[in-house]
Amino acid sequence: MVKKNKKISCSILIIGNEILSGRTKDQNVSFLASWLNLNLGIYVAEVRIVPDIDKEIIKNVLDLSKKYNYVITTGGIGPTHDDITSESIAKAFKKKYSFNSKALNILSKYYGNQINDPRKKMAKMPKGSKLIYNPSSAAPGFIIKNVICLPGVPLILQSMVHNLKKYLRPGAKIFSLSINCQTVESKIARELGKIQKKHKKFVEIGSYPFFRLGKIGVSVVIRSSKKNNLQSCHKDIIRIIKNKKIKIIKGD
Amino acid sequence: MVKKNKKISCSILIIGNEILSGRTKDQNVSFLASWLNLNLGIYVAEVRIVPDIDKEIIKNVLDLSKKYNYVITTGGIGPTHDDITSESIAKAFKKKYSFNSKALNILSKYYGNQINDPRKKMAKMPKGSKLIYNPSSAAPGFIIKNVICLPGVPLILQSMVHNLKKYLRPGAKIFSLSINCQTVESKIARELGKIQKKHKKFVEIGSYPFFRLGKIGVSVVIRSSKKNNLQSCHKDIIRIIKNKKIKIIKGD
Repeated sequence: MVKKNKKISCSILIIGNEILSGRTKDQNVSFLASWLNLNLGIYVAEVRIVPDIDKEIIKNVLDLSKKYNYVITTGGIGPTHDDITSESIAKAFKKKYSFNSKALNILSKYYGNQINDPRKKMAKMPKGSKLIYNPSSAAPGFIIKNVICLPGVPLILQSMVHNLKKYLRPGAKIFSLSINCQTVESKIARELGKIQKKHKKFVEIGSYPFFRLGKIGVSVVIRSSKKNNLQSCHKDIIRIIKNKKIKIIKGD
Repeated sequence: MVKKNKKISCSILIIGNEILSGRTKDQNVSFLASWLNLNLGIYVAEVRIVPDIDKEIIKNVLDLSKKYNYVITTGGIGPTHDDITSESIAKAFKKKYSFNSKALNILSKYYGNQINDPRKKMAKMPKGSKLIYNPSSAAPGFIIKNVICLPGVPLILQSMVHNLKKYLRPGAKIFSLSINCQTVESKIARELGKIQKKHKKFVEIGSYPFFRLGKIGVSVVIRSSKKNNLQSCHKDIIRIIKNKKIKIIKGD
Protein backbone atom coordinates (compact mmCIF):
# COMPACT_ATOMS: atom_id res chain seq x y z
CA MET A 1 0.00 0.00 0.00
CA VAL A 2 1.15 3.48 -0.85
CA LYS A 3 1.01 5.93 2.03
CA LYS A 4 -1.24 8.91 1.57
CA ASN A 5 0.67 11.93 0.24
CA LYS A 6 3.57 9.78 -0.86
CA LYS A 7 5.66 11.30 -3.62
CA ILE A 8 5.87 9.12 -6.70
CA SER A 9 8.60 10.00 -9.18
CA CYS A 10 8.99 9.28 -12.88
CA SER A 11 11.72 9.91 -15.40
CA ILE A 12 11.30 10.18 -19.16
CA LEU A 13 13.84 8.74 -21.57
CA ILE A 14 13.39 10.09 -25.10
CA ILE A 15 15.10 7.80 -27.61
CA GLY A 16 15.80 9.17 -31.06
CA ASN A 17 18.50 10.73 -33.24
CA GLU A 18 15.86 12.97 -34.83
CA ILE A 19 15.38 14.87 -31.55
CA LEU A 20 19.13 15.25 -30.93
CA SER A 21 19.73 16.52 -34.47
CA GLY A 22 17.12 19.24 -34.00
CA ARG A 23 15.06 17.93 -36.93
CA THR A 24 12.09 17.02 -34.73
CA LYS A 25 10.86 19.02 -31.75
CA ASP A 26 9.95 16.83 -28.80
CA GLN A 27 6.32 17.21 -27.77
CA ASN A 28 6.10 14.27 -25.41
CA VAL A 29 7.83 15.69 -22.31
CA SER A 30 5.33 18.47 -21.70
CA PHE A 31 2.35 16.24 -22.52
CA LEU A 32 3.48 13.36 -20.28
CA ALA A 33 4.56 15.62 -17.42
CA SER A 34 1.21 17.43 -17.36
CA TRP A 35 -0.76 14.22 -17.76
CA LEU A 36 1.13 12.41 -14.96
CA ASN A 37 0.78 15.42 -12.69
CA LEU A 38 -2.90 16.07 -13.23
CA ASN A 39 -4.15 12.50 -13.46
CA LEU A 40 -1.93 10.62 -11.06
CA GLY A 41 -0.02 13.07 -8.85
CA ILE A 42 3.21 11.65 -10.26
CA TYR A 43 6.01 14.18 -10.79
CA VAL A 44 8.68 14.03 -13.48
CA ALA A 45 12.05 14.25 -11.75
CA GLU A 46 14.39 14.00 -14.72
CA VAL A 47 14.38 13.71 -18.51
CA ARG A 48 17.11 12.39 -20.77
CA ILE A 49 17.31 12.37 -24.56
CA VAL A 50 19.66 9.75 -26.01
CA PRO A 51 20.52 8.48 -29.51
CA ASP A 52 19.49 5.17 -31.13
CA ILE A 53 22.53 3.36 -29.69
CA ASP A 54 21.87 0.23 -27.65
CA LYS A 55 24.63 0.81 -25.08
CA GLU A 56 23.28 4.28 -24.33
CA ILE A 57 19.72 3.02 -23.98
CA ILE A 58 20.75 0.13 -21.72
CA LYS A 59 22.90 2.28 -19.43
CA ASN A 60 20.28 5.01 -19.06
CA VAL A 61 17.34 2.63 -18.54
CA LEU A 62 19.19 0.81 -15.77
CA ASP A 63 20.33 4.05 -14.17
CA LEU A 64 16.91 5.75 -14.24
CA SER A 65 14.96 2.63 -13.23
CA LYS A 66 17.00 2.48 -10.03
CA LYS A 67 16.63 6.19 -9.24
CA TYR A 68 12.90 6.70 -9.80
CA ASN A 69 9.61 4.87 -9.27
CA TYR A 70 8.97 4.73 -13.02
CA VAL A 71 10.75 5.29 -16.32
CA ILE A 72 8.75 6.09 -19.44
CA THR A 73 10.62 5.69 -22.72
CA THR A 74 9.35 7.18 -25.97
CA GLY A 75 10.41 6.19 -29.47
CA GLY A 76 12.17 3.28 -31.11
CA ILE A 77 9.42 0.64 -31.02
CA GLY A 78 8.47 0.78 -34.71
CA PRO A 79 9.30 -1.59 -37.59
CA THR A 80 12.59 -0.15 -38.93
CA HIS A 81 16.29 -0.91 -38.34
CA ASP A 82 16.69 2.15 -36.09
CA ASP A 83 13.88 0.97 -33.78
CA ILE A 84 15.98 -0.76 -31.13
CA THR A 85 14.29 0.21 -27.87
CA SER A 86 12.53 -3.12 -27.15
CA GLU A 87 15.62 -5.21 -27.85
CA SER A 88 17.84 -2.88 -25.79
CA ILE A 89 15.49 -3.05 -22.80
CA ALA A 90 15.43 -6.86 -23.03
CA LYS A 91 19.24 -6.75 -22.87
CA ALA A 92 19.20 -4.27 -19.98
CA PHE A 93 17.06 -6.59 -17.83
CA LYS A 94 18.61 -9.82 -19.21
CA LYS A 95 15.23 -10.97 -20.52
CA LYS A 96 14.65 -12.94 -23.71
CA TYR A 97 13.69 -10.70 -26.67
CA SER A 98 10.87 -12.69 -28.24
CA PHE A 99 7.40 -12.55 -29.75
CA ASN A 100 4.58 -11.69 -27.38
CA SER A 101 1.70 -13.87 -28.55
CA LYS A 102 -1.01 -11.37 -27.59
CA ALA A 103 0.77 -8.59 -29.45
CA LEU A 104 1.29 -10.80 -32.50
CA ASN A 105 -2.40 -11.63 -32.44
CA ILE A 106 -3.36 -7.94 -32.35
CA LEU A 107 -1.06 -7.12 -35.26
CA SER A 108 -2.20 -10.12 -37.33
CA LYS A 109 -5.83 -9.10 -36.93
CA TYR A 110 -5.08 -5.45 -37.72
CA TYR A 111 -2.96 -6.07 -40.82
CA GLY A 112 -4.69 -9.23 -42.12
CA ASN A 113 -2.86 -10.45 -45.21
CA GLN A 114 -0.72 -7.29 -45.19
CA ILE A 115 1.29 -8.64 -42.25
CA ASN A 116 5.03 -8.92 -42.95
CA ASP A 117 8.29 -9.31 -41.02
CA PRO A 118 8.84 -5.61 -40.15
CA ARG A 119 5.25 -5.45 -38.84
CA LYS A 120 5.69 -8.66 -36.88
CA LYS A 121 8.85 -7.17 -35.33
CA MET A 122 6.59 -4.77 -33.39
CA ALA A 123 5.33 -7.78 -31.39
CA LYS A 124 8.84 -8.62 -30.17
CA MET A 125 9.63 -7.41 -26.66
CA PRO A 126 11.28 -8.49 -23.39
CA LYS A 127 9.73 -11.75 -22.12
CA GLY A 128 7.28 -11.08 -19.28
CA SER A 129 6.15 -7.66 -20.55
CA LYS A 130 2.54 -6.58 -20.14
CA LEU A 131 0.89 -4.79 -23.05
CA ILE A 132 -0.30 -1.21 -23.27
CA TYR A 133 -3.00 -1.16 -25.93
CA ASN A 134 -2.80 1.25 -28.84
CA PRO A 135 -6.18 2.38 -30.21
CA SER A 136 -4.57 4.37 -33.08
CA SER A 137 -2.20 2.10 -34.94
CA ALA A 138 -2.48 -1.28 -33.15
CA ALA A 139 1.22 -1.88 -32.30
CA PRO A 140 1.15 -1.99 -28.48
CA GLY A 141 3.52 -0.44 -25.97
CA PHE A 142 4.61 -2.48 -22.98
CA ILE A 143 5.68 -2.40 -19.35
CA ILE A 144 8.47 -4.51 -17.91
CA LYS A 145 9.50 -4.03 -14.25
CA ASN A 146 9.13 -0.26 -13.69
CA VAL A 147 9.88 0.69 -17.32
CA ILE A 148 7.10 1.69 -19.69
CA CYS A 149 7.76 1.82 -23.43
CA LEU A 150 5.63 4.08 -25.61
CA PRO A 151 5.99 5.13 -29.24
CA GLY A 152 7.50 8.50 -30.23
CA VAL A 153 4.71 9.83 -32.48
CA PRO A 154 2.86 12.27 -30.18
CA LEU A 155 -0.70 11.58 -31.41
CA ILE A 156 -0.26 7.82 -31.00
CA LEU A 157 1.36 8.19 -27.57
CA GLN A 158 -1.47 10.48 -26.43
CA SER A 159 -4.07 7.93 -27.51
CA MET A 160 -2.41 5.24 -25.38
CA VAL A 161 -1.88 6.83 -21.98
CA HIS A 162 -5.39 6.00 -20.82
CA ASN A 163 -4.43 2.31 -21.14
CA LEU A 164 -1.27 2.90 -19.14
CA LYS A 165 -3.05 4.35 -16.11
CA LYS A 166 -3.86 1.02 -14.46
CA TYR A 167 -0.17 0.13 -14.16
CA LEU A 168 0.83 3.27 -12.24
CA ARG A 169 0.47 3.87 -8.51
CA PRO A 170 -0.85 7.38 -7.92
CA GLY A 171 1.02 9.83 -5.71
CA ALA A 172 -0.11 12.86 -3.76
CA LYS A 173 -2.04 15.25 -5.98
CA ILE A 174 -0.04 18.39 -6.74
CA PHE A 175 -1.93 21.69 -6.70
CA SER A 176 -0.66 24.81 -8.42
CA LEU A 177 -1.59 28.46 -8.72
CA SER A 178 -0.09 31.12 -10.92
CA ILE A 179 -0.05 34.87 -10.55
CA ASN A 180 0.80 36.83 -13.69
CA CYS A 181 1.87 40.37 -13.07
CA GLN A 182 3.10 43.34 -15.04
CA THR A 183 6.58 43.71 -13.64
CA VAL A 184 10.13 42.43 -14.07
CA GLU A 185 11.64 39.67 -11.94
CA SER A 186 14.19 41.86 -10.20
CA LYS A 187 11.43 44.07 -8.72
CA ILE A 188 10.02 41.17 -6.69
CA ALA A 189 13.01 38.82 -6.44
CA ARG A 190 14.05 39.68 -2.88
CA GLU A 191 10.57 39.40 -1.42
CA LEU A 192 9.82 36.18 -3.33
CA GLY A 193 13.03 34.71 -1.96
CA LYS A 194 11.88 35.52 1.60
CA ILE A 195 8.46 33.97 0.98
CA GLN A 196 10.10 30.85 -0.48
CA LYS A 197 12.20 30.54 2.69
CA LYS A 198 9.11 30.87 4.88
CA HIS A 199 7.22 28.18 2.93
CA LYS A 200 10.16 26.01 1.89
CA LYS A 201 8.86 22.85 3.53
CA PHE A 202 5.68 22.47 1.49
CA VAL A 203 5.58 24.98 -1.36
CA GLU A 204 7.81 25.43 -4.42
CA ILE A 205 7.81 28.92 -5.93
CA GLY A 206 8.94 29.49 -9.51
CA SER A 207 9.33 32.83 -11.25
CA TYR A 208 9.18 33.00 -15.05
CA PRO A 209 9.53 36.16 -17.14
CA PHE A 210 7.37 36.40 -20.27
CA PHE A 211 6.86 38.63 -23.27
CA ARG A 212 3.29 38.51 -24.52
CA LEU A 213 1.43 40.83 -26.86
CA GLY A 214 4.22 43.35 -26.49
CA LYS A 215 4.02 43.32 -22.69
CA ILE A 216 6.72 42.24 -20.30
CA GLY A 217 5.56 40.28 -17.29
CA VAL A 218 6.38 37.68 -14.70
CA SER A 219 4.47 34.48 -13.95
CA VAL A 220 4.86 33.42 -10.35
CA VAL A 221 3.93 29.75 -10.14
CA ILE A 222 3.45 28.02 -6.79
CA ARG A 223 3.07 24.26 -6.40
CA SER A 224 2.33 22.07 -3.43
CA SER A 225 0.63 18.84 -2.45
CA LYS A 226 -0.92 20.71 0.50
CA LYS A 227 -3.81 23.02 -0.37
CA ASN A 228 -3.68 25.04 2.87
CA ASN A 229 0.00 25.80 2.55
CA LEU A 230 -0.50 26.74 -1.09
CA GLN A 231 -3.23 29.23 -0.19
CA SER A 232 -1.25 30.77 2.64
CA CYS A 233 1.74 31.23 0.32
CA HIS A 234 -0.57 32.68 -2.35
CA LYS A 235 -1.80 35.30 0.15
CA ASP A 236 1.77 36.28 1.02
CA ILE A 237 2.63 36.81 -2.65
CA ILE A 238 -0.53 38.79 -3.41
CA ARG A 239 0.29 41.03 -0.43
CA ILE A 240 3.77 41.97 -1.65
CA ILE A 241 2.47 42.54 -5.21
CA LYS A 242 -0.25 44.87 -3.92
CA ASN A 243 2.21 46.67 -1.61
CA LYS A 244 4.42 47.37 -4.61
CA LYS A 245 1.40 48.58 -6.62
CA ILE A 246 2.13 46.01 -9.36
CA LYS A 247 -0.74 45.25 -11.75
CA ILE A 248 -2.01 41.66 -11.80
CA ILE A 249 -2.88 40.36 -15.29
CA LYS A 250 -6.01 38.24 -15.42
CA GLY A 251 -6.03 34.83 -17.11
CA ASP A 252 -3.06 32.48 -17.52
CA MET B 1 44.68 22.03 -33.61
CA VAL B 2 41.62 19.98 -34.36
CA LYS B 3 42.08 17.33 -37.04
CA LYS B 4 39.95 17.75 -40.14
CA ASN B 5 36.72 15.73 -39.93
CA LYS B 6 37.03 15.33 -36.19
CA LYS B 7 33.74 14.77 -34.43
CA ILE B 8 32.99 17.36 -31.74
CA SER B 9 30.25 16.49 -29.28
CA CYS B 10 28.05 18.63 -27.08
CA SER B 11 25.45 17.89 -24.46
CA ILE B 12 22.62 20.17 -23.36
CA LEU B 13 21.56 20.47 -19.73
CA ILE B 14 18.16 22.13 -19.36
CA ILE B 15 17.72 23.44 -15.82
CA GLY B 16 14.20 24.27 -14.68
CA ASN B 17 11.23 22.93 -12.73
CA GLU B 18 8.88 24.60 -15.23
CA ILE B 19 10.00 22.22 -17.99
CA LEU B 20 9.70 19.11 -15.77
CA SER B 21 6.22 20.11 -14.59
CA GLY B 22 5.03 20.39 -18.21
CA ARG B 23 4.10 24.04 -17.73
CA THR B 24 6.67 25.28 -20.26
CA LYS B 25 7.60 23.51 -23.51
CA ASP B 26 11.32 23.47 -24.12
CA GLN B 27 12.27 25.21 -27.36
CA ASN B 28 16.01 25.38 -26.83
CA VAL B 29 17.04 21.79 -27.64
CA SER B 30 15.90 21.87 -31.27
CA PHE B 31 17.23 25.41 -31.81
CA LEU B 32 20.66 24.70 -30.28
CA ALA B 33 21.02 21.30 -31.98
CA SER B 34 20.26 22.73 -35.42
CA TRP B 35 22.44 25.79 -34.85
CA LEU B 36 25.43 23.75 -33.62
CA ASN B 37 25.05 21.32 -36.50
CA LEU B 38 24.69 23.86 -39.28
CA ASN B 39 27.14 26.48 -38.08
CA LEU B 40 29.85 24.47 -36.39
CA GLY B 41 29.51 20.80 -37.32
CA ILE B 42 29.04 20.02 -33.63
CA TYR B 43 26.57 17.25 -32.84
CA VAL B 44 24.40 16.99 -29.74
CA ALA B 45 25.05 13.60 -28.15
CA GLU B 46 22.78 13.79 -25.12
CA VAL B 47 20.26 16.07 -23.41
CA ARG B 48 19.19 16.09 -19.78
CA ILE B 49 16.47 18.08 -18.07
CA VAL B 50 16.92 18.52 -14.32
CA PRO B 51 15.17 20.48 -11.55
CA ASP B 52 16.40 23.62 -9.75
CA ILE B 53 18.27 21.56 -7.15
CA ASP B 54 21.96 22.30 -6.66
CA LYS B 55 23.05 18.68 -6.08
CA GLU B 56 21.40 17.58 -9.32
CA ILE B 57 22.97 20.42 -11.30
CA ILE B 58 26.43 19.76 -9.85
CA LYS B 59 26.32 16.00 -10.47
CA ASN B 60 25.06 16.35 -14.03
CA VAL B 61 27.44 19.17 -15.01
CA LEU B 62 30.44 17.16 -13.78
CA ASP B 63 29.22 13.98 -15.47
CA LEU B 64 28.46 15.59 -18.84
CA SER B 65 31.57 17.80 -18.90
CA LYS B 66 33.71 14.66 -18.67
CA LYS B 67 31.80 12.76 -21.35
CA TYR B 68 31.51 15.39 -24.08
CA ASN B 69 33.56 18.20 -25.61
CA TYR B 70 31.06 20.82 -24.46
CA VAL B 71 28.08 21.20 -22.15
CA ILE B 72 25.55 23.97 -22.74
CA THR B 73 23.25 24.72 -19.84
CA THR B 74 20.07 26.73 -20.26
CA GLY B 75 18.09 28.44 -17.51
CA GLY B 76 18.66 29.49 -13.94
CA ILE B 77 20.90 32.56 -14.44
CA GLY B 78 18.28 35.23 -13.70
CA PRO B 79 17.72 37.37 -10.59
CA THR B 80 15.35 35.22 -8.48
CA HIS B 81 15.80 32.72 -5.65
CA ASP B 82 15.27 29.77 -8.02
CA ASP B 83 18.11 30.89 -10.32
CA ILE B 84 20.91 28.76 -8.91
CA THR B 85 22.81 27.63 -12.00
CA SER B 86 25.83 29.98 -11.67
CA GLU B 87 26.37 29.21 -7.99
CA SER B 88 25.95 25.44 -8.56
CA ILE B 89 28.52 25.45 -11.37
CA ALA B 90 30.96 27.37 -9.18
CA LYS B 91 30.51 24.63 -6.57
CA ALA B 92 30.88 21.87 -9.19
CA PHE B 93 34.28 23.20 -10.29
CA LYS B 94 35.31 24.39 -6.81
CA LYS B 95 35.60 28.00 -8.03
CA LYS B 96 34.74 31.08 -6.03
CA TYR B 97 31.21 32.38 -6.77
CA SER B 98 31.81 36.13 -7.01
CA PHE B 99 31.08 39.29 -8.96
CA ASN B 100 32.58 39.48 -12.43
CA SER B 101 33.60 43.14 -12.78
CA LYS B 102 32.93 43.30 -16.53
CA ALA B 103 29.45 41.83 -16.06
CA LEU B 104 28.74 44.23 -13.19
CA ASN B 105 29.82 47.11 -15.39
CA ILE B 106 27.49 46.02 -18.21
CA LEU B 107 24.54 45.70 -15.83
CA SER B 108 25.26 49.02 -14.10
CA LYS B 109 25.32 50.82 -17.45
CA TYR B 110 22.16 49.06 -18.66
CA TYR B 111 20.08 49.65 -15.52
CA GLY B 112 21.53 53.02 -14.44
CA ASN B 113 19.93 54.08 -11.16
CA GLN B 114 17.47 51.16 -11.43
CA ILE B 115 20.24 48.75 -10.43
CA ASN B 116 19.45 46.70 -7.30
CA ASP B 117 20.67 43.57 -5.54
CA PRO B 118 18.69 41.00 -7.58
CA ARG B 119 19.98 42.62 -10.80
CA LYS B 120 23.53 42.69 -9.46
CA LYS B 121 23.22 38.98 -8.68
CA MET B 122 23.25 38.32 -12.44
CA ALA B 123 26.91 39.45 -12.47
CA LYS B 124 27.91 36.73 -9.97
CA MET B 125 29.50 33.66 -11.53
CA PRO B 126 32.36 31.18 -11.08
CA LYS B 127 35.71 33.02 -10.86
CA GLY B 128 37.61 32.79 -14.16
CA SER B 129 34.50 32.70 -16.37
CA LYS B 130 34.53 34.44 -19.75
CA LEU B 131 31.44 36.40 -20.75
CA ILE B 132 28.98 35.69 -23.54
CA TYR B 133 27.40 39.03 -24.39
CA ASN B 134 23.64 39.44 -24.43
CA PRO B 135 22.31 41.99 -26.93
CA SER B 136 18.69 41.59 -25.72
CA SER B 137 18.58 42.05 -21.99
CA ALA B 138 22.22 42.77 -21.02
CA ALA B 139 22.77 40.04 -18.38
CA PRO B 140 25.59 37.99 -19.93
CA GLY B 141 26.03 34.24 -20.14
CA PHE B 142 29.43 32.75 -19.42
CA ILE B 143 31.82 29.92 -20.18
CA ILE B 144 33.95 28.16 -17.58
CA LYS B 145 36.09 25.19 -18.61
CA ASN B 146 33.96 23.40 -21.24
CA VAL B 147 30.63 24.46 -19.75
CA ILE B 148 28.61 27.26 -21.34
CA CYS B 149 25.75 28.87 -19.41
CA LEU B 150 22.93 30.52 -21.31
CA PRO B 151 19.54 31.84 -20.17
CA GLY B 152 16.35 29.81 -20.59
CA VAL B 153 14.19 32.37 -22.42
CA PRO B 154 14.39 31.22 -26.07
CA LEU B 155 14.46 34.67 -27.72
CA ILE B 156 17.26 35.87 -25.45
CA LEU B 157 19.26 32.65 -25.91
CA GLN B 158 18.87 32.90 -29.68
CA SER B 159 20.18 36.47 -29.68
CA MET B 160 23.33 35.36 -27.83
CA VAL B 161 24.60 32.35 -29.75
CA HIS B 162 26.48 34.49 -32.26
CA ASN B 163 28.65 35.71 -29.36
CA LEU B 164 29.27 32.14 -28.25
CA LYS B 165 30.66 30.98 -31.58
CA LYS B 166 34.24 32.14 -30.96
CA TYR B 167 34.59 29.85 -27.93
CA LEU B 168 33.67 26.63 -29.77
CA ARG B 169 36.01 24.51 -31.91
CA PRO B 170 34.20 23.48 -35.07
CA GLY B 171 33.87 19.80 -36.03
CA ALA B 172 33.33 18.10 -39.34
CA LYS B 173 30.35 19.56 -41.17
CA ILE B 174 27.40 17.18 -41.16
CA PHE B 175 25.41 16.91 -44.39
CA SER B 176 21.89 15.58 -44.57
CA LEU B 177 19.30 14.70 -47.17
CA SER B 178 15.70 13.67 -46.68
CA ILE B 179 13.38 11.71 -48.93
CA ASN B 180 9.68 11.99 -48.14
CA CYS B 181 7.54 9.29 -49.63
CA GLN B 182 3.95 8.21 -49.62
CA THR B 183 4.24 4.86 -47.88
CA VAL B 184 4.35 3.26 -44.45
CA GLU B 185 7.55 2.30 -42.68
CA SER B 186 6.97 -1.44 -42.81
CA LYS B 187 6.90 -1.41 -46.64
CA ILE B 188 10.52 -0.27 -46.84
CA ALA B 189 11.90 -1.36 -43.47
CA ARG B 190 13.74 -4.49 -44.64
CA GLU B 191 15.45 -2.79 -47.59
CA LEU B 192 16.37 0.28 -45.52
CA GLY B 193 17.94 -2.04 -42.95
CA LYS B 194 20.09 -3.60 -45.67
CA ILE B 195 21.16 -0.21 -47.01
CA GLN B 196 22.02 0.94 -43.47
CA LYS B 197 24.24 -2.15 -43.06
CA LYS B 198 26.01 -1.42 -46.36
CA HIS B 199 26.67 2.21 -45.40
CA LYS B 200 27.01 1.81 -41.64
CA LYS B 201 30.54 3.23 -41.46
CA PHE B 202 29.74 6.72 -42.70
CA VAL B 203 25.99 7.24 -43.04
CA GLU B 204 23.21 7.23 -40.46
CA ILE B 205 19.73 6.48 -41.82
CA GLY B 206 16.64 7.46 -39.88
CA SER B 207 13.05 6.63 -40.77
CA TYR B 208 10.21 8.80 -39.43
CA PRO B 209 6.50 8.29 -40.10
CA PHE B 210 4.39 11.42 -40.52
CA PHE B 211 0.77 12.43 -40.91
CA ARG B 212 0.43 15.62 -42.89
CA LEU B 213 -2.58 17.16 -44.61
CA GLY B 214 -4.42 13.89 -44.21
CA LYS B 215 -1.64 11.90 -45.86
CA ILE B 216 0.45 9.19 -44.27
CA GLY B 217 4.10 9.19 -45.22
CA VAL B 218 7.65 8.37 -44.21
CA SER B 219 10.62 10.73 -44.09
CA VAL B 220 13.87 8.91 -44.66
CA VAL B 221 16.66 11.14 -43.35
CA ILE B 222 20.30 10.37 -44.08
CA ARG B 223 23.22 12.14 -42.38
CA SER B 224 26.96 11.98 -42.89
CA SER B 225 30.08 14.09 -42.67
CA LYS B 226 31.11 12.62 -46.05
CA LYS B 227 29.29 14.01 -49.08
CA ASN B 228 30.22 11.16 -51.44
CA ASN B 229 28.99 8.47 -49.09
CA LEU B 230 25.81 10.43 -48.51
CA GLN B 231 25.11 10.64 -52.23
CA SER B 232 25.83 6.98 -52.83
CA CYS B 233 23.45 6.03 -50.00
CA HIS B 234 20.84 8.45 -51.39
CA LYS B 235 21.00 6.67 -54.77
CA ASP B 236 20.48 3.28 -53.13
CA ILE B 237 17.39 4.52 -51.30
CA ILE B 238 15.90 6.19 -54.39
CA ARG B 239 16.41 2.91 -56.28
CA ILE B 240 14.42 0.80 -53.80
CA ILE B 241 11.67 3.42 -53.62
CA LYS B 242 11.33 3.49 -57.41
CA ASN B 243 11.43 -0.32 -57.61
CA LYS B 244 8.52 -0.46 -55.22
CA LYS B 245 6.64 2.20 -57.22
CA ILE B 246 6.34 4.42 -54.13
CA LYS B 247 5.51 8.08 -54.78
CA ILE B 248 8.11 10.63 -53.65
CA ILE B 249 6.62 13.79 -52.12
CA LYS B 250 8.43 17.00 -53.09
CA GLY B 251 9.54 19.52 -50.48
CA ASP B 252 10.44 18.81 -46.88
